[in-house]
Amino acid sequence: MTPESFRQHAHNLVDWMADYLSNVGHYPVTPQTQPGDILKQLPLHAPDMPEAFAAIFKDFETQILPGMTHWQHPDFFAYFPASTSPPSLLAEMLMSSLGAQCMSWLTSPAATELEERVMEWLRIAIGLPPDFTGVIQDSASGATLCALLCARERASKGQINTAGFTAQQRFRVYASTEAHASIEKSVRIAGIGSDNLIKIPVDTHFAMNTAALERAILSDKQQGYTPLCVVAAWGTTSSTALDPLAPIAALCKRHQMWLHVDAAYAGSAFILPEHREQAEGIEQADSMVFNPHKWLMTHFDCSAYFVKDTELLTRTLGLTPEYLKTDLDREVNNYRDWGIPLGRRFRALKLWFVLRSYGLSGLQKILREQIEWIQTLAKAIAQHTDFEVLAPVPLNLVCFRYAPPNTTEAERELLNQRLLAAVNASGSMFITHTRLKGVYSLRLVAGNPNTTQENISRAWHLIQATASTL
Amino acid sequence: MTPESFRQHAHNLVDWMADYLSNVGHYPVTPQTQPGDILKQLPLHAPDMPEAFAAIFKDFETQILPGMTHWQHPDFFAYFPASTSPPSLLAEMLMSSLGAQCMSWLTSPAATELEERVMEWLRIAIGLPPDFTGVIQDSASGATLCALLCARERASKGQINTAGFTAQQRFRVYASTEAHASIEKSVRIAGIGSDNLIKIPVDTHFAMNTAALERAILSDKQQGYTPLCVVAAWGTTSSTALDPLAPIAALCKRHQMWLHVDAAYAGSAFILPEHREQAEGIEQADSMVFNPHKWLMTHFDCSAYFVKDTELLTRTLGLTPEYLKTDLDREVNNYRDWGIPLGRRFRALKLWFVLRSYGLSGLQKILREQIEWIQTLAKAIAQHTDFEVLAPVPLNLVCFRYAPPNTTEAERELLNQRLLAAVNASGSMFITHTRLKGVYSLRLVAGNPNTTQENISRAWHLIQATASTL
Repeated sequence: MTPESFRQHAHNLVDWMADYLSNVGHYPVTPQTQPGDILKQLPLHAPDMPEAFAAIFKDFETQILPGMTHWQHPDFFAYFPASTSPPSLLAEMLMSSLGAQCMSWLTSPAATELEERVMEWLRIAIGLPPDFTGVIQDSASGATLCALLCARERASKGQINTAGFTAQQRFRVYASTEAHASIEKSVRIAGIGSDNLIKIPVDTHFAMNTAALERAILSDKQQGYTPLCVVAAWGTTSSTALDPLAPIAALCKRHQMWLHVDAAYAGSAFILPEHREQAEGIEQADSMVFNPHKWLMTHFDCSAYFVKDTELLTRTLGLTPEYLKTDLDREVNNYRDWGIPLGRRFRALKLWFVLRSYGLSGLQKILREQIEWIQTLAKAIAQHTDFEVLAPVPLNLVCFRYAPPNTTEAERELLNQRLLAAVNASGSMFITHTRLKGVYSLRLVAGNPNTTQENISRAWHLIQATASTL
Repeated sequence: MTPESFRQHAHNLVDWMADYLSNVGHYPVTPQTQPGDILKQLPLHAPDMPEAFAAIFKDFETQILPGMTHWQHPDFFAYFPASTSPPSLLAEMLMSSLGAQCMSWLTSPAATELEERVMEWLRIAIGLPPDFTGVIQDSASGATLCALLCARERASKGQINTAGFTAQQRFRVYASTEAHASIEKSVRIAGIGSDNLIKIPVDTHFAMNTAALERAILSDKQQGYTPLCVVAAWGTTSSTALDPLAPIAALCKRHQMWLHVDAAYAGSAFILPEHREQAEGIEQADSMVFNPHKWLMTHFDCSAYFVKDTELLTRTLGLTPEYLKTDLDREVNNYRDWGIPLGRRFRALKLWFVLRSYGLSGLQKILREQIEWIQTLAKAIAQHTDFEVLAPVPLNLVCFRYAPPNTTEAERELLNQRLLAAVNASGSMFITHTRLKGVYSLRLVAGNPNTTQENISRAWHLIQATASTL
């Protein structure tokens, strides 16, 4: 395909893309696809001869698109959003055109220095003190693994990186029972083992019980374990519960433990000064992560990792083989040494486009509205005699269930499973579920910039109407 | 930014992009940027108010672009290429428009099933037997880490994931002295430790000496270590040396070790049947990785990981918290459980576009030409009295140096360092260096689809002309 035929196809695609952005709300949010439906339409072998782009694009429209879940749909209230925006999309187009690898300063100086500056913009915007330095990671999972590896190397004085685990190192890591699965995955990868991830009970708000944390630490010390790290959640996945950072930080300080704050979804709310109060203590963390690719309208992958000891980070993850050495290595940031993979896209560009296109005030306005809409919805749910809210609603996620009077717990579980299946099968909305202290709960989150209060109202009406037919 | 203003900006960008694809050869390959040059042009804070896209794009053109290394430049001969193509770029535009998270089947059924099918296309295209199953990873680093974790869990019967390392587990991992730095990084991350990565000497072709490998394994066993895994390189980073896979596989079988083949760059050559002979034994590997995002014209990130025991892979890396459970989990692939990060872009789309747009015959033609051009260049270098080729040239990378008669080794090192700096400073080409058994070597690789034989000839002339002025 020549640049000129690319030009023609790309102009056509742009019209399709702009139409898609306008019309995404007219698709069913989730497809009516059964396992194997897509697979059976696809040939068994790659073609030997070139195919025309028109044929490929036709198959994209007829075979692929009908099997997609539309994550940018205004009625997508499931999981956490992967919110994007037109300025971020424009940046993705440019970065893909450049096709640059941004692993070292030399391999793309402007990409490295723009990353340094936009991460500093972001640090200031979320109110973190200047002893934190930011770097873009692929995901919160990756960032949390980096944090855990740094904690491991700090505690072992680099011995595990060098010599591997020995019988002396009996580490314990702590997170609440509500913590994200990526914590356990990281604990496994780092060779610490799931059994040494101690899950601390939560209080009635689903936030970590710090008295229980302290008891666990003391008991482990008595048994000869080394308490290594607490991963505190600021915004758990199930209910955006906020672990109390100040008392956790005090415990970490007392016992010389690493404090990593996993604010993957909710951390974007730190651009709102009124929400920072609930995160007091974060300034004492060793590291924190949040994902602009979740709630700050920047395409995946763009996970913002802030860390105090960058020297420890690069010592833990850095390796400079001969073929990557440059004369400038002491003067510049080589971000390949700040994370797991070597290759890196020019991810700073989209964050730069988003921060400038919206301005901080524009982003704040969007987040404040979404939070307000869900607070309003939560009040309506709480006031309904047949529904109940199951967890505090600090931000823009509400956990709730259909709980008509005179139904048993078992009946309620079944009713809500059927309710979930029915509203999602409509194609008019998409919500997901969780369990809160064993209770089956529906969850609805509004973090998509295409969503309006009208979408939320319609979803609530559909939920009520569907429940009444069960 | 509304969809309509996006449409307008995106049409303008498409013209810029098509022009860039046409004109990329007119930019200096590497910028004349000094550390801090870009940084000092960028404001210290994110703007509070929105900025117009025209202003942002102007800054992209005037502040960022002049500081970029142009990886798609036809005179980019450095590192390994990150080759892209117009069809892949079109796919990136679509996938970014959809903004889908492809972590589970349910979160995007079509993305999951297309990945399953295109990875099967790729498996057949590279001649791997059907007991391998493919999945797209972010990078070869990530894939190698997955392989090592699977080896660790197979050997420990899942005990390290569960309970962490104990004194019983004294693992050893083997790779050649020429192996990529990501192997050592993975060994560190997995808690095995650099000291337990045994670097096996290479033969005169810079390929692993299998007699030395066997001695190392036997000696380690005698000392009570458990030989865990060999990471064989099919195409080392310095010189694309090819480790002899058949004898290595035989040793792995005899000692019950995992065999992982790191073919990150060179593995794309497996689409050429005439090059598969040199990879005999690969069918006995437990896993292999190669990067279509390096030499198969597909944008980063698209690393193809093929593994035999997918059940072990998902047991090692899988975790299904309540909020991700679906009724279909037993029937479908949830690719989040096949790699490190949870989030995943719709990466299969670009591979599908590339394989269909070029057809296998089209891709084969491009790779064969690039290999032939470098073979021709290598002959010219070898015939020149003042230059020498420093390693075999099995594919499209040549390692060489300026070695005028009557110069000492020390003088040659200095001359080649100056030669490298001088040709790169011209902005007309970009090559990098390595060391081969201590000898400072220049390396030139031609894997960029924009490169023609004319570009290579010009580079060779510039190298000779520059050398004669030193």
